[in-house]
Amino acid sequence: MAAPVDFYFDFSSPYGYFAAFKIDSLIERFERSVRWRPIMLGAAMKVSGNRPLAEQPIKGEYAVRDWDRMARFLELAWQKPDPFPIAALAPARAFYWLDDRDPKLAKAFAKAALHAYFGEGRNIAVPEVAAEAGAPLRIPAADLLAAVARPEIKERLKAETDAAIEQGVFGSPFIFVDNEPFWGQDRLWMVKRWLQSGGW
Amino acid sequence: MAAPVDFYFDFSSPYGYFAAFKIDSLIERFERSVRWRPIMLGAAMKVSGNRPLAEQPIKGEYAVRDWDRMARFLELAWQKPDPFPIAALAPARAFYWLDDRDPKLAKAFAKAALHAYFGEGRNIAVPEVAAEAGAPLRIPAADLLAAVARPEIKERLKAETDAAIEQGVFGSPFIFVDNEPFWGQDRLWMVKRWLQSGGW
Repeated sequence: MAAPVDFYFDFSSPYGYFAAFKIDSLIERFERSVRWRPIMLGAAMKVSGNRPLAEQPIKGEYAVRDWDRMARFLELAWQKPDPFPIAALAPARAFYWLDDRDPKLAKAFAKAALHAYFGEGRNIAVPEVAAEAGAPLRIPAADLLAAVARPEIKERLKAETDAAIEQGVFGSPFIFVDNEPFWGQDRLWMVKRWLQSGGW
Repeated sequence: MAAPVDFYFDFSSPYGYFAAFKIDSLIERFERSVRWRPIMLGAAMKVSGNRPLAEQPIKGEYAVRDWDRMARFLELAWQKPDPFPIAALAPARAFYWLDDRDPKLAKAFAKAALHAYFGEGRNIAVPEVAAEAGAPLRIPAADLLAAVARPEIKERLKAETDAAIEQGVFGSPFIFVDNEPFWGQDRLWMVKRWLQSGGW
């Protein structure tokens, strides 16, 4: 089996949310697995000189309209959360804590957290709210809360974010097929074509 | 026949170039016409606080790679021109001069100018070079050069750019189907779906 496809996203990114519910089914039909890698996009934006869409005049207003439209197209639960964006440290740290033991569970938790934030408007930056998202998956809240407070887990998220920046990640979602970078949920069609043809 | 679809682009925009060779065939199968509207994107960027991709660290490098990849995918002649980007006043002014008399000829000229710049690396910001692009279409160079120097044509491009900014245009290409905005060449699939279903 070929190397896994890397899927970078920020828990505060609407386009990351949209991609998260598509990426595995898209990639797995090519007999490749997907390695999820949540990052803190704010740190990457500092390096690339970008700003959150919500802070950008005109483009930010377009983005709000585009998120509504894309969510309707994908038939995904959607509301623009408040507060938005958030520094989603808690779910990202919880993800790595889970991923080391059970990558499948980590993905299920990530989807639940993304749904809680973008589908239900619950502020997953609050550790207790992130823990609630894990409850239906039988992830003990107390264990999750203890994990996200541990220095080595905090350091882990920082290291993963730094590694992503090092690889050239500047947005969310960001996908690598082998060493080929694809930025944006609206490029999933190109990822598919790339996998079909082995590049061009 | 329903109202025309508006297609905004900057002659210095690679994604505008890519879209220009697709847009008419895409739209016309829905029995809609396309109204081309070149603008000076720099003026729009001042309002929205954006910068040319070429000036952005990391994202700019990704863009260069993406242009190469997209051109190969579309099988369009492509080189990253030098200088890039340019203030493409001459071809945009020439476009409006032609468009008032013959919109079909104006589109053919626009395609020729885009090809000259992105396919052959010729600097179409130089009025004489823009005029050369019109030669195979039997557009008299002397007439074109006189037209692009006229105050009312200069004013026209400015007015069209201002109107685009007023409508919310912040990038190239930018497409309106009725009042629905679509930004980016990689959203042509969505424009198509929108026309197929009458929105969603």
